[in-house]
This record gives sequence, C-alpha cells and structure tokens, in this order.
Amino acid sequence: MSVIYKRVSLIGLGLIAGSMALAMRRAGLAGEITGYARSAETRDTAREIGLCDRICDSAAEAAKDADLVVLCVPVGAMEAVARDIAPVLKPGATVSDVGSVKRTVIEAVSPHIPDGVHFIPAHPLAGTEHSGPRSGFAELFDNRFCILVPQPDSDRAAVDSLAALWRGMGANVDEMDADHHDLVLAVTSHTPHLIAYTMVGVADDLRRVTDSEVIKYSAAGFRDFTRIAASDPTMWRDVFLNNKDATLEILGRFTEELFALQRAIRQGDGDHLFDYFTHTRAIRRGIIDAGQDTDAPDFGRAKAQKG
Amino acid sequence: MSVIYKRVSLIGLGLIAGSMALAMRRAGLAGEITGYARSAETRDTAREIGLCDRICDSAAEAAKDADLVVLCVPVGAMEAVARDIAPVLKPGATVSDVGSVKRTVIEAVSPHIPDGVHFIPAHPLAGTEHSGPRSGFAELFDNRFCILVPQPDSDRAAVDSLAALWRGMGANVDEMDADHHDLVLAVTSHTPHLIAYTMVGVADDLRRVTDSEVIKYSAAGFRDFTRIAASDPTMWRDVFLNNKDATLEILGRFTEELFALQRAIRQGDGDHLFDYFTHTRAIRRGIIDAGQDTDAPDFGRAKAQKG
Repeated sequence: MSVIYKRVSLIGLGLIAGSMALAMRRAGLAGEITGYARSAETRDTAREIGLCDRICDSAAEAAKDADLVVLCVPVGAMEAVARDIAPVLKPGATVSDVGSVKRTVIEAVSPHIPDGVHFIPAHPLAGTEHSGPRSGFAELFDNRFCILVPQPDSDRAAVDSLAALWRGMGANVDEMDADHHDLVLAVTSHTPHLIAYTMVGVADDLRRVTDSEVIKYSAAGFRDFTRIAASDPTMWRDVFLNNKDATLEILGRFTEELFALQRAIRQGDGDHLFDYFTHTRAIRRGIIDAGQDTDAPDFGRAKAQKG
Repeated sequence: MSVIYKRVSLIGLGLIAGSMALAMRRAGLAGEITGYARSAETRDTAREIGLCDRICDSAAEAAKDADLVVLCVPVGAMEAVARDIAPVLKPGATVSDVGSVKRTVIEAVSPHIPDGVHFIPAHPLAGTEHSGPRSGFAELFDNRFCILVPQPDSDRAAVDSLAALWRGMGANVDEMDADHHDLVLAVTSHTPHLIAYTMVGVADDLRRVTDSEVIKYSAAGFRDFTRIAASDPTMWRDVFLNNKDATLEILGRFTEELFALQRAIRQGDGDHLFDYFTHTRAIRRGIIDAGQDTDAPDFGRAKAQKG
C-alpha cells in the first residue's frame, strides 16, 4: 500500500482515532500523523505510547499543513473543534469526521469550512465498549463498514482518496445521504444501545435481586447488554441528543412491537411467540452470511485474545 | 475425577444435553450415558456422532436403570416426559432437569416422581444461539453457574452428588428457591431475550431501511441482539409462557425506565442521559471483575475458534 495523505491530523485521541493511527501505520497510508486531545492527560498518554508521530498542544497546531484532518471527538464537540482549526486549514485539504450522527454534524461543521477545503463526513461502523487512547487496535475496522456522506458539492477525487484511506485501514466503504444514515443507525445501533442501557439500569434498580446476583448470573442475554451499556457516556449522550427524531421514531415502533409480545405472553398465545422468534432467527442467519459475525458455537469467546 | 453416577440418561438431545455428554466424558463422571430424543432424525444424528454410549428409541428405555435422569427438553414438554419415564425409575435414582424456569417445571414434574426417587431441579446458565445435537461442546459450562433448586424434602446426599456432577462439568454451583430463581432469570435472561427479539423484529419491519442494510451495517449494538434473538424458538416460547408473572413484572419496569430516557431525549436533557449511562458502565465493570466475561478490547472475537 502507498501513502495516500502526506500528513493526517487526528483531533481527539480515543478508541477510533487510536485505531486509525495504528491501522494507517499498519498499511503505510500516511506520511506523518499528528494528534491532539483536549485533556492533557490523554495527550501525555498518547505521547507515552507513541500513538502518533507528533502530539500537539492545540487543535490548530495539529491541523496546520495537514492534508487530511479527522475530527474524532464526540458529536457535541465537533463545532468547537471546527471553529478552532478553520483558520489554519490549507487549500485543497480534506476535513472529515467519525461521528455516529451525520445531519447535525454537517450543520455544525459546514459553516466553518473555508472555501477550497473539502468537507467529507464519514462514520466507521466499529467500536468496542472501551474508550481512551490505550483502547485502540489496528484491526478495529477490518471487514467493517465505513459510510461516507459526500456533500452535494464534494470533489470526487477528494472523496475517492478518503475512501481509499478507509479501505486501506481494512474497511468496506459505502456512500449514503445524511438523513438515511441517521435512520439506519437509529435502527442498527442507537436504539439498541438505549435499550441495553435501560435494561441494565432496571436490573440494578430491582430491590429483590441483588447486583451481585445480577452480575453472577448474567451469562445468558444480559451479558451482551452490559457490554453495550458500558460504552462511552459522553459519546452516547451526544448521539441521542443529535439523532433525536430518528431515535424517537424507532423507539415508538419498538414499544408498539414489545406491547404486542407482552400481550401474547399475558394471554398465553404461544403461536404468536413461536412465529415471531422463528422469524427473527432467520435475520441472524443473514448477518452471518454477510460475514459480519462469527458462527462459532461458543460465541467466539473461548479462545478470546487481543487482536 | 471419578465416576459419580454409574448410568446417566439424557432425555432430549439438544445443545445442553450434547454439551453435558461431552463434559461428562471429558472428566469421566459417568459410567454409561444413554440418550433419547423425540425426533428420529435427532436420534440418528446422535448415533452418527457417537454423542452417547447408547441412543434408545423411547424415553422409558433410556431412563431404565439410570442413576441420574436429566430432562433436557423444552419446559413445556417436561410433564409428558416425566409421565413416560415414571414407571421405570429405580428406587434411589435422581431425576433432574435443565429448564430455564423452575416453578412451573416443579409443578409439572413433581406429581409424577415415585416415592424413593429424588427430584432435584437444576438450571445451568449457559447457552448459545445454536441448537440440536451437533451444537454441543464440552466447555459450555466452564466457569458458568448452575443453579440447583432442591425441594423441601430433598435428600442432602443426592443434592451433593448432583452438585459434584455439575462442578465436574466445569460449572460453579449455587442453590436457590424456585420463585427467586424465576425472578433473577427474568431480569438477567428472559426479559433481555424478549427485548432483543423485539428489536430485531422492528428492524426487519421498517420499510425505509432494507434488510440488506440492517444486515450490512449491524456491527454496532444490533449484532449482539441478533445473536440473542436467534435462539431456539420452542425453548423461548415455553420460557415466556412459563415465567409469565416475573417477565411481565420486569417488562413493566423496563418500559417505565425506557419512557423516562425517551422523555430525556425529547427534552434534550443531556445530564439525565449522561448520568444514566455513567451508572450502567459501572455495572459492566462488576461483571468483568466477577469473571463472567472477557475484557478484550475487540469483544473477544478477533481470534474466535471453536472451543
């Protein structure tokens, strides 16, 4: 693989930026990688583990002379970062981001992008429940999707370069418009996360079952929920505040369906339950066939190792 | 490890029975293992893969002369099996089960247990989304909990032998009363499963997002739900029909909490969301500390292999 951008600047140094730095290095995609994080502690950690070639003490310093600047901060912090770096962006540079919501990020960032700079929003569909500069790993994006959301006036060559970078980091690349992205993610990620958070909260709140019991006996079902519900609180607060309409729509559908199943349980309607569960099983089969998960009978956990 | 039961009979040959047969062999816990499944196809498969020492063509034949008979059928089928095997049970034998619900199983099975036979319900908290005789593996119960639900008149020595068998198969053993078991499982397993089934159904039902999109972009959050929602439909139908009261109670709590978070999203109350998510993250930490899951940053999937 050859260098795609001479200088890449990562603003925000959490799980995604850390994994990007490692994945770009793995494939030699960037000449130099600079980085910035708002917290001095995060910057020190990043320096200590050599996450980037150079860690700067301001976003503007990190973004100066960069060919690609990637905003890797929570969705609610994107506008402030865009404002900080705008004056130093060089003509022909590309600004992108990795936010889980696209419409509000575009509205927040676009006004700050100078003429002659390309703004191409993106969202890699990958993550773990861990956060911070030490949580990244080079394989995070392997065989996952990265959705690019080119703007009506986006330069095709600039979009193609960004797509090549993501492919070089292991991802499959698709393009989508912002509103459709936000709806798809409300279904596949945002609402499931909210539900998992809720279930974990309910379990904790129940007086007759102790936390210790919940924790001990969580092998089945609940364990997956707790992993989801352990994700970064700031990131997820911003997701829900910024993808409000789509999340509320899907939540409405969800409660409607849940009430129907609840009534079937109350009425002892076994056929309704059986048919519903048979149908959902087929959907899982599709996900395995699409290569998005393992079919290992032990959930792929027995020989778990850091990738 | 030495032989605990000279002859063990497994009625029903799915994931749990298959894993028990392999785990008992791994540790040499049973002199002979007999098996029976209602479906001739399942019996043929079990014979082909040598799952048990002997596969019988009736439950009574398999249970005859057994020192331990374990009912490994869906909860709704327990009573019929108990009725079939009752006449052949030998004095001093133990009958147990692996059902996910305990109160209704006890009510259904107890009346059929002859005097002089010990009935000790049990529930191993382990499973995958796979089913059938080929889905078992010897490590399924390793470091998982098996809950025994001794009856008021249970013989202590018989309970201790069953506990020793489960420990020999790799499990940690706890004892609990039936009603408490059913409530704990409603929280940690049954309600999470119902929620996962519901979310997968909603995703499938949404016209503006195609199944193919849901499947392609399911890396985050939703993927765990589809795994849960792919579990055996018959087993789960019976779970909900038989643990109705506890499931409905927990579902009531769940929707109450969900509506509070939904309102926070609608009103843009970021503090409420942030505090809630921070709290649930701590619960996850407890589960890892209790050794019930891996802390690998890649969810333990990168190097997945059959155990």
